[in-house]
Amino acid sequence: MRLFDETLEVLNLGLGTFADAIETAGGRAIRIEWAPPAAGDHAAGQALARLVNDARVEAANRTAFAAYLAAQPVLEGIAPAREAVPGMDGRRILHAGPPIAWAHMCGPMQGAIIGAILFEGWAADPGSAGHLAASGEVAFAPCHHHGAVGPMAGVISPSMPVWIVREATRGRRSFSNLNEGLGKVLRFGANGAEVIARLRWMAGPLCRVLDATLRQAGGIELKPLIAQALHMGDEVHNRNAAATSLLLRRLLPAMLQSTAGRDDITGAVTFIAGSDHFFLNLSMAACKAMLDAARDVPASSMVTAMARNGVAFGIQLSGTGDRWFTAPAPVVDGLFFPGYSTADAAPDLGDSAITETAGLGGFAMAAAPAIVNFVGGTPDDAIANSEAMGHITLGRNGGFTLPAMNFTGTPAGIDARLVADTRLLPVINTGIAHREAGIGQIGAGITHAPPDCFAQALVALAAALPDG
Amino acid sequence: MRLFDETLEVLNLGLGTFADAIETAGGRAIRIEWAPPAAGDHAAGQALARLVNDARVEAANRTAFAAYLAAQPVLEGIAPAREAVPGMDGRRILHAGPPIAWAHMCGPMQGAIIGAILFEGWAADPGSAGHLAASGEVAFAPCHHHGAVGPMAGVISPSMPVWIVREATRGRRSFSNLNEGLGKVLRFGANGAEVIARLRWMAGPLCRVLDATLRQAGGIELKPLIAQALHMGDEVHNRNAAATSLLLRRLLPAMLQSTAGRDDITGAVTFIAGSDHFFLNLSMAACKAMLDAARDVPASSMVTAMARNGVAFGIQLSGTGDRWFTAPAPVVDGLFFPGYSTADAAPDLGDSAITETAGLGGFAMAAAPAIVNFVGGTPDDAIANSEAMGHITLGRNGGFTLPAMNFTGTPAGIDARLVADTRLLPVINTGIAHREAGIGQIGAGITHAPPDCFAQALVALAAALPDG
Repeated sequence: MRLFDETLEVLNLGLGTFADAIETAGGRAIRIEWAPPAAGDHAAGQALARLVNDARVEAANRTAFAAYLAAQPVLEGIAPAREAVPGMDGRRILHAGPPIAWAHMCGPMQGAIIGAILFEGWAADPGSAGHLAASGEVAFAPCHHHGAVGPMAGVISPSMPVWIVREATRGRRSFSNLNEGLGKVLRFGANGAEVIARLRWMAGPLCRVLDATLRQAGGIELKPLIAQALHMGDEVHNRNAAATSLLLRRLLPAMLQSTAGRDDITGAVTFIAGSDHFFLNLSMAACKAMLDAARDVPASSMVTAMARNGVAFGIQLSGTGDRWFTAPAPVVDGLFFPGYSTADAAPDLGDSAITETAGLGGFAMAAAPAIVNFVGGTPDDAIANSEAMGHITLGRNGGFTLPAMNFTGTPAGIDARLVADTRLLPVINTGIAHREAGIGQIGAGITHAPPDCFAQALVALAAALPDG
Repeated sequence: MRLFDETLEVLNLGLGTFADAIETAGGRAIRIEWAPPAAGDHAAGQALARLVNDARVEAANRTAFAAYLAAQPVLEGIAPAREAVPGMDGRRILHAGPPIAWAHMCGPMQGAIIGAILFEGWAADPGSAGHLAASGEVAFAPCHHHGAVGPMAGVISPSMPVWIVREATRGRRSFSNLNEGLGKVLRFGANGAEVIARLRWMAGPLCRVLDATLRQAGGIELKPLIAQALHMGDEVHNRNAAATSLLLRRLLPAMLQSTAGRDDITGAVTFIAGSDHFFLNLSMAACKAMLDAARDVPASSMVTAMARNGVAFGIQLSGTGDRWFTAPAPVVDGLFFPGYSTADAAPDLGDSAITETAGLGGFAMAAAPAIVNFVGGTPDDAIANSEAMGHITLGRNGGFTLPAMNFTGTPAGIDARLVADTRLLPVINTGIAHREAGIGQIGAGITHAPPDCFAQALVALAAALPDG
């Protein structure tokens, strides 16, 4: 009973209200920030306890992270998806994010699929295209299931040209569609005549010019190009102004020396030079290639994909293969174009979070202070985001350095354990689509991967781990 | 005599050794940093006393700075210097920096002039070219005397093509030669067969393509392009990677739509795409245009030119017109290429300090953290340089914002009074030439304008000012 006679000196773990009471009563409390592991999710907490400091997980993560670092994505060519992408047969359309049935898709994704059906000529008008999509006679699959990635709706149909990126150390190929520019575009769900006409031109003259150019140029290593763009204010997700310019500059001599005709070249160059986002899809394919190199390492808690279909946000871990762990897609907090607000926005959408998964985009925001003009915040916030991501990643990518952080490598290799443990969520720079098809982009901003994905993934990873 | 009985409490102005003695003797001294105005230069100090807080100088500086801010340099065309540059008649060769006689020129400048004579066909070999140069039969004049600027040796001869930049608010034209790329080049004093052959190709096919392109494109505003490059890691003096890419991207559609032939276009594009420095000469011509707009405002202490000829460093003030104030050119402290050191370096050389005079280059270093890979230091030093230059400038240029400094405008409009008063010297990013002709660039680094130029300029400005 001496306790009540002595001056109270208390260490307060977690909730500060206990310390408040002690201090009010004249006692002294030292506050220690604490919260239950995995935010109190019992199963995830148990899984975390098993996975933290497990030597097998550490070793697996070293293997996966080393494979990611060693990967060398090389732009090899361009071809219709039907020819380039394995399994792209019959009436099959790929989309962004984890799997989702037609009936549950968000507006922009349904709009983009209707556009793809019109582009393929499988239906003559939007009404019949919608019926066809709902009939079950078109197969839908995530881009990720075919080694591909696509921004926003991420819709790829068999006749669309795709970039072919070869990961040089293992020979595996990744794919992405071509960027259509801004305004009324398929990836935001627009499917009017001008959109279909542009897609046909892209599948025709543009694809021909780029094919001839890449045949003339040989392979183009994408990592050095991305590294240079990071020194020129891009984070290669929402800002690709430098990377697009560098790509064009790299392609041009070969383009002019190629067999392509002058009119086609003029059209292609005018199109590419007119869009700061043209490089985005190549950035995504390169990131996909780097992360696919880190796949399928048993026991690894490294995240190999983050992707959104406008309804669900899904992640994959190296140690759990192709399994998705999903949670509702969040709404993006950002800067809206005049006349629009959060109420108009589709939830988070697109495979483009593959850039963040690879340590770029939001993770490399310190490289791109001017991005805040687009996604909001201040240049200091941009640096703070890159610094924060260092707490949930396996290491630094010395191939991608951040000048504003004294040329530190960008934080990369998200460890699902660290996300659950620190409750710091991966930050993602992204565009915002209108929730209805066809209206297009209405803003851009910053979002975070939902914590539930990581909790589920840890439970699955722990369950797959034999008792050690 | 009570002083000796009391505890000593002393305010110590300037030299700290007096305070040291007082403290050693047990007294207390508060140290106030102070130095004689104009570093003790009596005449300059007198001039400074007259010019500081003189309402006429303040008003004149507002006028000059406003004219600099309002200037709109537009790339208008390209033509041989003989046709474009006023007064470029007969056997006349322009060079960098303030006036200098042949016999006193540094090695790289003599080498470049010999090259220009060979290029013009005025002599058949370097020996006779040197004799011709020494004979007095070739007129030499600073580029600045003809509205022009040239990097390093800055040599412009009548048959060389020049960029023509028109300042849209006043219609005055500025000029610069074309950048030859790196390696053995005329501007570093090389004059071998490959150098002359390249100059002939530049005066022929390259000039033809660019002429056809600019006729097709119409005028190209250079300030928005520079502003964008500052958001992409350039300071548009020693780093022009983004600006060159943006320029190429801007020119290409017009180039392809122009009358230029495909082989010439391929050659031009390959050449431009191969050099990160191609934009430098346009940056310089744009800066010259902005500063010429601020010239000849009586009583203004704003610096309108800083230029070096490898022997002398010269400045001009708005209020003293075309008069040069010179001091020995400093040696550049920087990063040397392997095998070279300060002992091999020519003193500071070139008109390129016109970029710093316009608030770019070293003044905008905060925009270009990656420049430190080239000129030495850390990204924090780069920001510190931009911050320091804010103490010697008349204002900020809101058209050129610095992302790393939360989008503050770059400090611009050097006030010679503030330089003399604060003894903060204008910082200049620059290349370093070998002191002998023909060896070329041996490094790059940071230098400072010598204080004597500013002291002399203030004396002259004060002398020209009627008693107020």
